[in-house]
Amino acid sequence: MTERYLEDFAVGQRFSTGRHIVDDAQIKAFAAEFDPQPFHVDATAAERSIFRGLAASGWHTAAIAMRLLVHGDLRPAGGIVGLGLEDMQWPRPVRPGDELRVETEILQVRPSASKPSQGLIKVRNTMLNQKDEAVLSQTVNLLVLRRPAKD
Amino acid sequence: MTERYLEDFAVGQRFSTGRHIVDDAQIKAFAAEFDPQPFHVDATAAERSIFRGLAASGWHTAAIAMRLLVHGDLRPAGGIVGLGLEDMQWPRPVRPGDELRVETEILQVRPSASKPSQGLIKVRNTMLNQKDEAVLSQTVNLLVLRRPAKD
Repeated sequence: MTERYLEDFAVGQRFSTGRHIVDDAQIKAFAAEFDPQPFHVDATAAERSIFRGLAASGWHTAAIAMRLLVHGDLRPAGGIVGLGLEDMQWPRPVRPGDELRVETEILQVRPSASKPSQGLIKVRNTMLNQKDEAVLSQTVNLLVLRRPAKD
Repeated sequence: MTERYLEDFAVGQRFSTGRHIVDDAQIKAFAAEFDPQPFHVDATAAERSIFRGLAASGWHTAAIAMRLLVHGDLRPAGGIVGLGLEDMQWPRPVRPGDELRVETEILQVRPSASKPSQGLIKVRNTMLNQKDEAVLSQTVNLLVLRRPAKD
């Protein structure tokens, strides 16, 4: 699939990704390195916590979403370059065995006011588990290259 | 240091973390697993990209911030449990060799309307490099336990 320039995006378009199954070992390995709190690394402690069972770090969930997006069908020209998030929520914990995928909707498309070769798209990413329950949602502004002028 | 309950937080308080030096190998390892785009895994490709040199994935930067916060002096009772982000920006790339730390300011403290044992604090986290330049900023809502009633 070829890359999409700013001109190829339109409000309302939807894109999707493949799927990733997260397991107990992945959850504990990520948490040991980046979020070493009991409810992310120890099943027994997790049972007694607010999560009532082992749950992936929200940052692990977000990182898995990024990996799925990189291999998904959005494919903005220049790569997936986030300028910032307008919001992010984790409405439900991610558990060992969950099968995750991301759906993207284009909310806004606009050329850059200052850089003629660039533009911005605002997208809404929703990560769903195998029961189609949302586990992550985020509104992201991405930098996208404009289609080069023809000679 | 003991944990802080909701009643121990007040608007305007500031907290800090230790420091973490991110190197070339860490940047490439995280990106290979979660954000395998050329500007995060290949120095030559990165030179030709919008980043003009190897840069950490924004999700790696956010994950390092989380690790620093877990070991920092914020220490909310019940752990650092994020309900969501109101915004997040990456104003500058993180480069190999950067020394990172996080500063936190308490923006809001309020009891939960529905759960008497819980409350929310809104915090602003700013991650700075060794030149005191911001590389990440985020506004986060955290769940914090209230101090148990005395018998």
